[in-house]
Amino acid sequence: MEEKLMRKLSSGSLDFEAYFSDKAQGMKASEIRELLKLVEAGDVISLAGGLPAPETFPVEIIKEITAEVITHHADKALQYGTTKGFTPLRLALADWMEKRYGIPTSKVEIMMVAGSQQALDLIGRVFINPGDIVVVEGPTYLAALNAFKYYDPKFISIPMDDEGMRVDLLEEKLEELRRQGKRVKFVYTVSTFQNPAGVTMSLERRKKLIELAREYDFLIVEDSPYSELRYSGEPIPPIKHFDDEGRVLYLGTFSKIFAPGFRLGWIAAHPHFIRKIEIAKQAVDLCANPFGQVIAWKYVADGHLDEHIPKVIEFYRPRRDAMLEALEEYMPEGVKWTKPDGGMFIWVTLPEGIDTKLMAEKAIRKGVAYVPGEAFFAYRDVKNTMRLNFTYVPEETIREGVKRLAEVIKEEMNALKG
Amino acid sequence: MEEKLMRKLSSGSLDFEAYFSDKAQGMKASEIRELLKLVEAGDVISLAGGLPAPETFPVEIIKEITAEVITHHADKALQYGTTKGFTPLRLALADWMEKRYGIPTSKVEIMMVAGSQQALDLIGRVFINPGDIVVVEGPTYLAALNAFKYYDPKFISIPMDDEGMRVDLLEEKLEELRRQGKRVKFVYTVSTFQNPAGVTMSLERRKKLIELAREYDFLIVEDSPYSELRYSGEPIPPIKHFDDEGRVLYLGTFSKIFAPGFRLGWIAAHPHFIRKIEIAKQAVDLCANPFGQVIAWKYVADGHLDEHIPKVIEFYRPRRDAMLEALEEYMPEGVKWTKPDGGMFIWVTLPEGIDTKLMAEKAIRKGVAYVPGEAFFAYRDVKNTMRLNFTYVPEETIREGVKRLAEVIKEEMNALKG
Repeated sequence: MEEKLMRKLSSGSLDFEAYFSDKAQGMKASEIRELLKLVEAGDVISLAGGLPAPETFPVEIIKEITAEVITHHADKALQYGTTKGFTPLRLALADWMEKRYGIPTSKVEIMMVAGSQQALDLIGRVFINPGDIVVVEGPTYLAALNAFKYYDPKFISIPMDDEGMRVDLLEEKLEELRRQGKRVKFVYTVSTFQNPAGVTMSLERRKKLIELAREYDFLIVEDSPYSELRYSGEPIPPIKHFDDEGRVLYLGTFSKIFAPGFRLGWIAAHPHFIRKIEIAKQAVDLCANPFGQVIAWKYVADGHLDEHIPKVIEFYRPRRDAMLEALEEYMPEGVKWTKPDGGMFIWVTLPEGIDTKLMAEKAIRKGVAYVPGEAFFAYRDVKNTMRLNFTYVPEETIREGVKRLAEVIKEEMNALKG
Repeated sequence: MEEKLMRKLSSGSLDFEAYFSDKAQGMKASEIRELLKLVEAGDVISLAGGLPAPETFPVEIIKEITAEVITHHADKALQYGTTKGFTPLRLALADWMEKRYGIPTSKVEIMMVAGSQQALDLIGRVFINPGDIVVVEGPTYLAALNAFKYYDPKFISIPMDDEGMRVDLLEEKLEELRRQGKRVKFVYTVSTFQNPAGVTMSLERRKKLIELAREYDFLIVEDSPYSELRYSGEPIPPIKHFDDEGRVLYLGTFSKIFAPGFRLGWIAAHPHFIRKIEIAKQAVDLCANPFGQVIAWKYVADGHLDEHIPKVIEFYRPRRDAMLEALEEYMPEGVKWTKPDGGMFIWVTLPEGIDTKLMAEKAIRKGVAYVPGEAFFAYRDVKNTMRLNFTYVPEETIREGVKRLAEVIKEEMNALKG
């Protein structure tokens, strides 16, 4: 028998690919993550990432809370938790959302997830049948496309302008679909300081979107990781605020207002939806990490969250300003960009004919990295855009990065003319 | 327009069920979790749960490490991490597995997951096509069935005895399938101190299983959450130890040797498989929580893990002994149970004709709870078994619980005779 084993072994290694499921065969690594690996080497200014600045992490508060949690709440923090999440944290968040956004706690239930990325996956799992129509913004959050894609929806991409999703174009599309006897399962929107475009859906469009949801009977997934990071302008209530029926699933996260290292987000939605998502999560990972949840509970319930947000804003505002100023100063005519009131990203549109994906390697050689816009479109049909991040590196570095980038763009534009 | 909205609103609430995907329609809550909710009320001794005893959590070590991590490693602990996991932790685990189990680091790669439950889901996602044959033990880990089920496999359930899976019966089945031109995608086994049965696959069967895997070309998913918790007998190397080809995906977890509250587990497998699972995880939740990972790294790398395991063993051994003794003392003739050398569970088989699911409510009224065995079988075709946990409550409570349980069983047996 041993001999037989040895013979088989020496016959060479497995055909690993052959074991994967059909869906796994098609899975590809995130292009941004691959690009970032490239950037790590050498003197490259990265405007490509999407990381919060570590300087904004409330390290002293975390130190204090964590010691307290281990001393007084180890029984909860170190044990398995319920799938829905640590109840005191869920109550504190419901309370916070009511105060901050006027979303009545009585009408929603909160469920904790392992970052809002997990919420996207669970929503795909619970709502999407293969072929179901999911509306996204064009551009939209890349990792949402990745999460939903596994469930084989048909995407419809609605263009954006400075006031967010073109809800008028959505209405036309809905009418067209209705004539074909089709309907939309849900609309996915990053409503405030969108990733990647930086724009915010106007109040009027929010109201109109809710109206359309009733009229054409679809759900809305409102992903709102950046809404607390407002550097200018007046706050606008979330779409969820206008939802009287339970059509909106609101996604929040601690990653930008506390620290991403806890991997904690939440879903605020009608209890009926929460119940099903909870069952789905049970099979997927039992519960979000209780250690982080108990810490997050103290952070919210003891008022640290409300105290900390203004500090994050003060830290990021000069970076946003620095990037806007540098773009103004260095970019050649013909280049356009959004002017976000908050969040982490600015969206740059180059003249038609420039392919930012092809340009990326040149830029890295010139010492600056960005994310080519193509991957943010469901059908990858727009080639001349890019996403710039302004939260991770200091003002002076941002200026230098934008300057380098402008030089690369000028060269491309000249090459285009010639 | 407002009027129209109000009219619609007043027309009643949404038909929430109608929005769910077909697969979500079929999702059901874990019966154990539902049962445990029932138990929380009243003076019921629960032998039903699967929780580690909080007394085993190394609170002082966690306190110390956590303070150190926040002071010196906040940049890693509080930021987003890579999908594969915190590299120093992965290296420490690879090193630990090599020392402890003789699994050469060079042949595996380690990837961190949000508890081994997530590993089960990701493995389902990456390997199972609808209709693929997945072999499980009968009984098997309930939550593995739940995780895999989403991906629509066809389960084949192989009976167990005191030496684990009946590998001889597996071989017959494989031969039968081969004649039908079919093959198995993977065999799932909780090889050591199985949940729920408490038994351990013998050395001989481990070797035989690897041989069969080569011969019939399938993979092995070796789930090993309890293998460190050995109270008697000699250690047996994991199946992974005998794997020269990369057919075995080994799942480890910190939940039983550190604390479940961190929600951290790992997959040790061939780099080719890890790479694909990594891509799948990226869409699902980006990364396991870095805060917990950095803490776990210090726990393993500084030698706390090796120091702590013997303490857990000393804590649990008397509880295992107490349950075995109580079963011996109180159970009527005709009742059989396993004698585990470790882990957390004992599996009890009652005379044919008794349905432990129907009996559960009576038991709770008598003040004791267990998990009916039915749900641990892929086809729910065995009615007269139950799982008892001996780690969560103290010895005296275990004795009293088993005593109460024996009374209920005697009544049932009498009713059966009558």
